[in-house]
Amino acid sequence: MRRGLFIGRFQPFHKGHLYVIKLALKEVDELIIGIGSTQLNYEVNNPFTCGERLQMIREALREENISPDKYWLIPIPDIHNNYVWVSHVESLCPPFHVVYGGNKHTLKLFEDAGYEVKEVEIYGSGEYSGTEIRKKMLNKEPWETYVPLAVASFIKKIKGVERLLTIAESK
Amino acid sequence: MRRGLFIGRFQPFHKGHLYVIKLALKEVDELIIGIGSTQLNYEVNNPFTCGERLQMIREALREENISPDKYWLIPIPDIHNNYVWVSHVESLCPPFHVVYGGNKHTLKLFEDAGYEVKEVEIYGSGEYSGTEIRKKMLNKEPWETYVPLAVASFIKKIKGVERLLTIAESK
Amino acid sequence: MRRGLFIGRFQPFHKGHLYVIKLALKEVDELIIGIGSTQLNYEVNNPFTCGERLQMIREALREENISPDKYWLIPIPDIHNNYVWVSHVESLCPPFHVVYGGNKHTLKLFEDAGYEVKEVEIYGSGEYSGTEIRKKMLNKEPWETYVPLAVASFIKKIKGVERLLTIAESK
Amino acid sequence: MRRGLFIGRFQPFHKGHLYVIKLALKEVDELIIGIGSTQLNYEVNNPFTCGERLQMIREALREENISPDKYWLIPIPDIHNNYVWVSHVESLCPPFHVVYGGNKHTLKLFEDAGYEVKEVEIYGSGEYSGTEIRKKMLNKEPWETYVPLAVASFIKKIKGVERLLTIAESK
Amino acid sequence: MRRGLFIGRFQPFHKGHLYVIKLALKEVDELIIGIGSTQLNYEVNNPFTCGERLQMIREALREENISPDKYWLIPIPDIHNNYVWVSHVESLCPPFHVVYGGNKHTLKLFEDAGYEVKEVEIYGSGEYSGTEIRKKMLNKEPWETYVPLAVASFIKKIKGVERLLTIAESK
Amino acid sequence: MRRGLFIGRFQPFHKGHLYVIKLALKEVDELIIGIGSTQLNYEVNNPFTCGERLQMIREALREENISPDKYWLIPIPDIHNNYVWVSHVESLCPPFHVVYGGNKHTLKLFEDAGYEVKEVEIYGSGEYSGTEIRKKMLNKEPWETYVPLAVASFIKKIKGVERLLTIAESK
Repeated sequence: MRRGLFIGRFQPFHKGHLYVIKLALKEVDELIIGIGSTQLNYEVNNPFTCGERLQMIREALREENISPDKYWLIPIPDIHNNYVWVSHVESLCPPFHVVYGGNKHTLKLFEDAGYEVKEVEIYGSGEYSGTEIRKKMLNKEPWETYVPLAVASFIKKIKGVERLLTIAESK
Repeated sequence: MRRGLFIGRFQPFHKGHLYVIKLALKEVDELIIGIGSTQLNYEVNNPFTCGERLQMIREALREENISPDKYWLIPIPDIHNNYVWVSHVESLCPPFHVVYGGNKHTLKLFEDAGYEVKEVEIYGSGEYSGTEIRKKMLNKEPWETYVPLAVASFIKKIKGVERLLTIAESK
Repeated sequence: MRRGLFIGRFQPFHKGHLYVIKLALKEVDELIIGIGSTQLNYEVNNPFTCGERLQMIREALREENISPDKYWLIPIPDIHNNYVWVSHVESLCPPFHVVYGGNKHTLKLFEDAGYEVKEVEIYGSGEYSGTEIRKKMLNKEPWETYVPLAVASFIKKIKGVERLLTIAESK
Repeated sequence: MRRGLFIGRFQPFHKGHLYVIKLALKEVDELIIGIGSTQLNYEVNNPFTCGERLQMIREALREENISPDKYWLIPIPDIHNNYVWVSHVESLCPPFHVVYGGNKHTLKLFEDAGYEVKEVEIYGSGEYSGTEIRKKMLNKEPWETYVPLAVASFIKKIKGVERLLTIAESK
Repeated sequence: MRRGLFIGRFQPFHKGHLYVIKLALKEVDELIIGIGSTQLNYEVNNPFTCGERLQMIREALREENISPDKYWLIPIPDIHNNYVWVSHVESLCPPFHVVYGGNKHTLKLFEDAGYEVKEVEIYGSGEYSGTEIRKKMLNKEPWETYVPLAVASFIKKIKGVERLLTIAESK
Repeated sequence: MRRGLFIGRFQPFHKGHLYVIKLALKEVDELIIGIGSTQLNYEVNNPFTCGERLQMIREALREENISPDKYWLIPIPDIHNNYVWVSHVESLCPPFHVVYGGNKHTLKLFEDAGYEVKEVEIYGSGEYSGTEIRKKMLNKEPWETYVPLAVASFIKKIKGVERLLTIAESK
């Protein structure tokens, strides 16, 4: 049994994230999807609560017929000591063997702690990035094609774009 | 869609917990199982890490053929302001409607916040209690029958009883 | 202009506290009443929120015709470093010159920091103590005479005794 | 009895703040004035301690003959979870019904929690803004007319501008 | 180069501690002496500040002609997650290879993280224990022989016993 | 006996720091070297752990034949209340009388608390600054001459520049 780890903030969950998850699930038996910065919400860079992000991800993966038996959805609160962060993640998760990601900084920390790491090229590049998608929402440009259908309809249901616009208005 | 919430420390997950979960799943479409005091571990009263408790619960529910589509496993870090705690739980979870539990204190907080609450009589009473099970482990009495089979074998695999005994030895 | 400081948890505000305040107000121009452990509430030893304690005190002092010009009501969150605590209080309050209290531990800290301190003998002794009053509430004995009238009626209005009993029931 | 809430950092308290308070006091019986970011001080953007801000506000309102019976001055420490923040404020204050402010972000949080909110147009716009006043202080331009007389003389008494300049010098 | 680690609260530093340090220094090139619970002070169980404990230890070791080149004195603030604690210690200290102690709980954590551990039998047993020494101070019994001379005279200089008695008087 | 205090982040320890230490040691009997922001590491602005910084400094001072009897190396964790910070430092250190530094902000805090302060002109100016040295490392320019020899070889041994480059790559 081989388990992978993939951590993101998922503000919001987009097709780049989904790509990494599908790719990882070809290589591991189970994937831990860690929701980072769980305590941040109702901010321009972090509009959604942890609970909302959990829902987005679960609905997007259901839509893709990915069985919940194949993944773990685990919130990871921030701590402000990077060296200790790997150990913090270990205490919250079942054991894992390989870490997926596009952020070299995070991968470096896990690599220095002895984990196998896999840099995923496409993730975070270009349009499939949370920052870009929030920018499109703020500019009232189309953003829906960059996220899974289930995520787009979830964000509409909770009036996520209106929330983001209100937050942004007051700096 | 009706969602329930059931929070425990699950040190360890036992048959009393399983009873509540099965009962709740007859009444709601989905149940959120909140892992409380996530940051406590390697203590006499909290021997298992959050990651270990997640594994115990998932394996016990798999053994019972309870589909992971029916429940959410969500770690809930402690905060030390009870009034604010309900809101803290809300920020971490998808929306819920009814709260199950044996602890009147917790139920009171959710009730005062407007939630429906259901006190579950059997839970925590008598032998099906984490405290009693840890006591049996410490006294080298049989404890295995009080937890699901999957939990007993998981605890053996990670040498949980040996860990508890070592911790207890040093005051 | 001479200012005094008097810090308590006020769980609940009782006649012993009122006695100290009246005594201090004969000696100083203004008194700072610090509400300690602001973040604790809905616990057996800390049943009331900070907001509720602020209301109790203000209503009790209004009943005594003590002008709000004479006192400051300032919440003081706990920090867990006693040496630093004096400085923490200073950062939250206007300057003060003399510290009133019954707790020698607290007075010692302020005295070591150079403040004049006044130990108030009667305060906290015997029946005029928060612990004793909460005990009476839990034992369903009369407790009303130990607190100002305004506090007794406030506690009844918010169903404070029922809350305390519910909290206590669940250990 | 109708109570309002108005939260600011008050670095320093200025005439824009005073305007909101007077306006609110025409509509409510009592106003809670919440001092935000209580723990920040001796910083370029937060030069004054909580205790100093409490003094400024009390002296400015006394100057305006606003009775302390009409308002509550309550420090509100920061927490870094916006969703939970409303509940945090509730735990620290007496109950309130309407929230005044110029910051749409804050108002959104209270509105989503079910409170009536009132956006106050003039507040924070143009010259009546803490940022602008601190900038004038740093540039050695006149700033006194933007704050109540009592605040100007308080800041002079504590050598607030000199403090700000020293802090700013070392980046 | 082989480095050892020895962590204690040192409330106060006593001859049992000194025994462990001397023993360890026969086996390693350098010893890290970690001061635990750095933030606790002015409490019955933690009367001395971190700064005072650093002084005690340095003076006791100077008295023994132990060169400061042979040891590191490093304060270790508490964190409340035992699993993560080992990593927290690693981030604060130079690399170490063997952990000395009398507390099996602590040793277990380091052992599970892959360190060599050495249980030191005599340490903490019987009279050479901080708890016993504080008890003697509180009972006004002789305590001086249980600590190095330099520590006894340091405690007298700062009036440590008087402080402990005052703290103990108030609850 | 006169003791000085000098606090820095030492990311990394450079010749400007060494200059201040040598200068101070001419004026005081002992110098406390406080390592600030102990919890920050593996960041672009804070690449080294506290443990690594302790090693750098000790090795650099050994190289200069500065006896460890003359200085104390004490980690100072951040707290986010400047006013309280002086008291926090006092609780962690032996008593001191004069504070050395180049940062007027920090010196102001100690001065307001009654300490003698000495602004050290050269420190932090121009090339002898942590920011400049990290910039050179990132630009693959020579940085070694700005730090003591022992520090340069320590950073090479732990592959510090490679770490910084990896961290910087991922924003």
